[in-house]
Amino acid sequence: MEAVIWKRPCVLALRSCGPFATCGSRGTFGFRNGGRALHRTFILRVINSTGSGAVVARPSSARKYKRSEGVDRKLVALRQLFHKPGLQMDAYIIPSQDPHQSEFIAECFMRRAFISGFTGSAGTAVVTKDKASLWTDGRYFLQAENQLGPDWTLMRAGTPGVPTVSEWLTDVLSPGSKVGIDPFLFSSDAAEELKHTLSTKDHKLIYVYDGNLVDEIWKEDRPKPPAAPVRVHDIKYAGLDVSSKISSLRQNLVEAGATSIVISMLDEIAWLLNLRGNDVAHSPVAYAYLIVELDSTTLFIDPSKITPEVIVHLRNSNVTVKPYESLLLEVERLANCGAKLWLDTSCTNVAIVDAFHSACNKYFENLPKRSKQKSIKERNKLLNAKSIDSEMEGPLAIHKASPVAIAKAIKNGAELDGMRQAHLRDAAALAEFWTWLETKVVQDKTTFTEVEVADKLLEFRSKQAGFLDTSFDTISGSGANGAIIHYRAEPDTCDIVDDKKLYLLDSGGQYVDGTTDVTRTVHLGEPSSREKECFTRVLQGHIALDQAIFPENTPGFVLDVLARSSLWKIGLDYRHGTGHGVGASLNVHEGPQGISYRYENMTGLQGGMIVSNEPGYYEDRSFGIRIENLVIVRDMETPNRFGGNSYLGFEKLTFVPIQSKLLDLSLMSPAEIEWLNNYHSEVWEKVSPLIQGDVHEWLWKNTRPVPVHSTA
Amino acid sequence: MEAVIWKRPCVLALRSCGPFATCGSRGTFGFRNGGRALHRTFILRVINSTGSGAVVARPSSARKYKRSEGVDRKLVALRQLFHKPGLQMDAYIIPSQDPHQSEFIAECFMRRAFISGFTGSAGTAVVTKDKASLWTDGRYFLQAENQLGPDWTLMRAGTPGVPTVSEWLTDVLSPGSKVGIDPFLFSSDAAEELKHTLSTKDHKLIYVYDGNLVDEIWKEDRPKPPAAPVRVHDIKYAGLDVSSKISSLRQNLVEAGATSIVISMLDEIAWLLNLRGNDVAHSPVAYAYLIVELDSTTLFIDPSKITPEVIVHLRNSNVTVKPYESLLLEVERLANCGAKLWLDTSCTNVAIVDAFHSACNKYFENLPKRSKQKSIKERNKLLNAKSIDSEMEGPLAIHKASPVAIAKAIKNGAELDGMRQAHLRDAAALAEFWTWLETKVVQDKTTFTEVEVADKLLEFRSKQAGFLDTSFDTISGSGANGAIIHYRAEPDTCDIVDDKKLYLLDSGGQYVDGTTDVTRTVHLGEPSSREKECFTRVLQGHIALDQAIFPENTPGFVLDVLARSSLWKIGLDYRHGTGHGVGASLNVHEGPQGISYRYENMTGLQGGMIVSNEPGYYEDRSFGIRIENLVIVRDMETPNRFGGNSYLGFEKLTFVPIQSKLLDLSLMSPAEIEWLNNYHSEVWEKVSPLIQGDVHEWLWKNTRPVPVHSTA
Repeated sequence: MEAVIWKRPCVLALRSCGPFATCGSRGTFGFRNGGRALHRTFILRVINSTGSGAVVARPSSARKYKRSEGVDRKLVALRQLFHKPGLQMDAYIIPSQDPHQSEFIAECFMRRAFISGFTGSAGTAVVTKDKASLWTDGRYFLQAENQLGPDWTLMRAGTPGVPTVSEWLTDVLSPGSKVGIDPFLFSSDAAEELKHTLSTKDHKLIYVYDGNLVDEIWKEDRPKPPAAPVRVHDIKYAGLDVSSKISSLRQNLVEAGATSIVISMLDEIAWLLNLRGNDVAHSPVAYAYLIVELDSTTLFIDPSKITPEVIVHLRNSNVTVKPYESLLLEVERLANCGAKLWLDTSCTNVAIVDAFHSACNKYFENLPKRSKQKSIKERNKLLNAKSIDSEMEGPLAIHKASPVAIAKAIKNGAELDGMRQAHLRDAAALAEFWTWLETKVVQDKTTFTEVEVADKLLEFRSKQAGFLDTSFDTISGSGANGAIIHYRAEPDTCDIVDDKKLYLLDSGGQYVDGTTDVTRTVHLGEPSSREKECFTRVLQGHIALDQAIFPENTPGFVLDVLARSSLWKIGLDYRHGTGHGVGASLNVHEGPQGISYRYENMTGLQGGMIVSNEPGYYEDRSFGIRIENLVIVRDMETPNRFGGNSYLGFEKLTFVPIQSKLLDLSLMSPAEIEWLNNYHSEVWEKVSPLIQGDVHEWLWKNTRPVPVHSTA
Repeated sequence: MEAVIWKRPCVLALRSCGPFATCGSRGTFGFRNGGRALHRTFILRVINSTGSGAVVARPSSARKYKRSEGVDRKLVALRQLFHKPGLQMDAYIIPSQDPHQSEFIAECFMRRAFISGFTGSAGTAVVTKDKASLWTDGRYFLQAENQLGPDWTLMRAGTPGVPTVSEWLTDVLSPGSKVGIDPFLFSSDAAEELKHTLSTKDHKLIYVYDGNLVDEIWKEDRPKPPAAPVRVHDIKYAGLDVSSKISSLRQNLVEAGATSIVISMLDEIAWLLNLRGNDVAHSPVAYAYLIVELDSTTLFIDPSKITPEVIVHLRNSNVTVKPYESLLLEVERLANCGAKLWLDTSCTNVAIVDAFHSACNKYFENLPKRSKQKSIKERNKLLNAKSIDSEMEGPLAIHKASPVAIAKAIKNGAELDGMRQAHLRDAAALAEFWTWLETKVVQDKTTFTEVEVADKLLEFRSKQAGFLDTSFDTISGSGANGAIIHYRAEPDTCDIVDDKKLYLLDSGGQYVDGTTDVTRTVHLGEPSSREKECFTRVLQGHIALDQAIFPENTPGFVLDVLARSSLWKIGLDYRHGTGHGVGASLNVHEGPQGISYRYENMTGLQGGMIVSNEPGYYEDRSFGIRIENLVIVRDMETPNRFGGNSYLGFEKLTFVPIQSKLLDLSLMSPAEIEWLNNYHSEVWEKVSPLIQGDVHEWLWKNTRPVPVHSTA
């Protein structure tokens, strides 16, 4: 699944843009993780930029909130709420977020879609007393134009002259206005940045704690919060038991001088507790918070999701369960007990962070005067302290990136093994699928819609052992649709897959033991020489990255150029990153590592990480090409170890043939052809035992070596 | 000339380290440009890290300040000055800098060498009432141990546990101490950072304006300030007349809302005024400042350096000359006249910046009350202003990177042509040199010392038309000495060049029309297979970078990996950058662009820039390899221009054979061999017309194609 949607011209803008900037990206535009602390910011901007936009968007056929005629009743109702007792607001911002800054969100959190009618994945709605504006990026301009009612103004984010949300607000509001937000939907960092910008024109940001205003209008039509049962992620796939993981985390706390931490990212909680949920499509996570203290662990979750099996599992790991809603009370209790609380303000919502800060202030206000002075003195010392004395009296907020992200990113042996196994079964399903498609289209001269093809693929995957879900909405793009990086085929409007056009298929599965994500581009007829040249250059980039060997801790962006050089040679490029992290039977996008042309994410690649390798090329209104494998980062045991470094490289996880027909062999070096032949021989070796009959035959044909010519 | 000496483990440390950090680098360690504003900081850290350390170090034979026996009289004398009326200092810092943050400095500024006895290029001396410490980096530990007297403590910067200058000061001084510096030797940014760090322990940083304290001890022994005459850089080489350059600069001023600028970097002044000086070895610059206002230009320089020819030249360009020492008065006058003064605080010394700020404060203090309030109000508005209203009353300091650096970096046609011509003559000199060396060593079985070989090279270069100087001290390293990246051969101690060892020769020339910098590594006997493998991989890196094509404005660091990949494949690497900018008949190191593994310098490569391409490999105590060409960045006219970008590549400037004998052809791809053969054919074509006799024959032999084998 393609990794980054930001356009190159945005690179510089993004460096300085906060969550309200107009860059055409969900990562920064939609507040998501905006301004996450250094280390993580880089990461999550990359992850969240992955668009996969379509996933949270409801298909057009399923739209409940039709474009209204005449007066926009929702806007009227929302504006009435501006004058609720104690509020007196001048504007309200409705972002796309859930309270956990998740990439994929449950329907009940799709408030921006409800209020504006615009169902795309990325967007921010802002309603003032007399205006209603919606910001979205280039992917969705057309869709937003169609879906927004006449009272809404579309703000084409990233287009010259279009202000950011905060620029617009400071401009249209008279000085000293009040802008309201739901503090559960903004990360602390994003809220702070917004507050700062608004303050330059004396506007005030106010946190509306008393329920989300959109929900008050949505009323009983609002989808219920998801309540799917949680299951235990088998230790044979998890590799490490919960106690060991929590014990490592406590070690991190001790080293940082912290006594407790709030974990708010859903995949971090799932990984830490060896649990998997079903609250959100494609991501096997459950809505929850987790507080880990030095001597206790508390999971905040709707208790109805906890099965007897999970109760036992949690009890064995000494994890207590409390209701999801009781988190803030617990955070306040921590302050009252003098906890040194680790908070990742880049992904923890400002409601939580503020609750702790307020309780801390209260704690100190209630101290006798002398103790208060002592505390202030102690705190002032911290300004230059290298470590925190956890014995220091009174509570303390330690703002720091969560240590769980990197722990989760470096897979253990069992996780890697699960990923390998899941990928082989996935490869078998794909071999079956491609055999079916080729037979139908080439031999039977049948054509299918892009949606039908995607459905058929799901059918093949579903038959594989341990299959649970697709890992994201399949991108099934024929011809020109392949050039739309975040394309989602809709039954009513989609194109057909035939033997006249290139066909790009980006898909993945969630299995009990692993998560897959693979893209292949094929031509079922006769590709043009232009298509072959472009495909060959994309493959050359893929090969160059796959073969890279590099010192441990090299940031992923250093390798990005390897995937682009072959395209650059003829003046071509692609506007997305080259690789993203992937969870082990978890989210298909995870950090902190990534391989991007945005040169920001300094996270070093380490053995055990998983990344995608997915260069592409997209010719507008014509065709799209992407070749994606997942790979494991691992030690390459080089003959030298200069500087005492390990030198790392990639082990392939994905074993699906690459269509040789699309290659212009004259462009390829002998070494590149050798790579291809070796890869195909490996595909045959690993996948052929899992398939039979005509699929076996298809795989044999599609893994035959191509001739190595004498000069490159 | 190799570009960066920072060691890889330092990368992270450097990201956060200020001028007093203990990284083993001159760039940050020695205050040089520490903390220069974003854009330039990156750059100049790279430039100044280029070590070439030896250049400011005096050869051992020429050392005037011998290690003293018994009481260190200089320290005693210096400490007495701590109690001068009005001073009452507790410590004094003596950096390596001149007032212009130059890479190479005149002898009269080598105060740190005088006071400490340590003559290496990088180092900071700090003297307190009872302690004297000298910080230097790994290159100079041995030399410093030998040169420092018994009262000095060597601080091995970059070694674990060794504090930075400011850490040490805050530690050894009792709270509330006063630390003195010469404000002319610290950039404003460096001084501010130092001030801030010291303030955390209530120490105060004081600027000693009243003469440098070391000079008071040095007295009449102090070398006179250089007074070499300045010459006009011919318009046929400069390409653009002074009026045009100043007119563009004024355009920059107007766009920034500024009315004047102080230029303090010597090469920027030389470039802007089409002047060249002779005040510093290797850098054709003169000590001077320049103030450009919207309607006048003033050069501050010792008038004795100005020849009648230069007087006419300056008069034609409407440049007024004032004495060097009168700069501060002029800066104060600017404040009094309400100037909006552009100051690059990263390279302008704090004496200048402070003079302007003080004069501004005075200006506002003297205003009638009502005007004062208006001014304050106007100034407060600036906090959020996007542009500055130059009509606003009263003076204003605009802190911003100097616009001259990038203007200078993008060479015009005449400059590029001069560079091409100078490189051809330089190549002829090198062909003569290599013929001589090979004949003497291989045929006549003579050996020479590394110094003798370097001297002979100078002899050949000197015969070329327009030759002026070497562009840096030649690095002539035989065998193990080649592995010392910043090696400087000394007559007493150097090794011999023979047919038993690899020999690395990094050298360059200053010509009237251009500046060269070239490294070749040769073996005059039988290289080992290890040497061949390493040499081949270094060349493969050189070739990969040379062949790169990339979108305009790609930061140089993106390409760095291309030069390393081939070494990484077998677990090898090198601890310096891959490329630095080069001036056109100016400094051999210039910014803002660079190609480095430090991933910080975001300056995009643009057509007309010149960079070096110099990967290497160094095997401690054994041998060193580096292959360096200079190249011009230029449009490659690719068949596509994705994203509307130009795609850039490199045009070679250097035409000196690469020793084929050192290649393991079996490692090379057909495309790499083709590159080598094409290069050699171009060398022959371009250089053979300039040489004769046995040199002609040598060049013929050394540019013959090597066979392309059938598989890679």
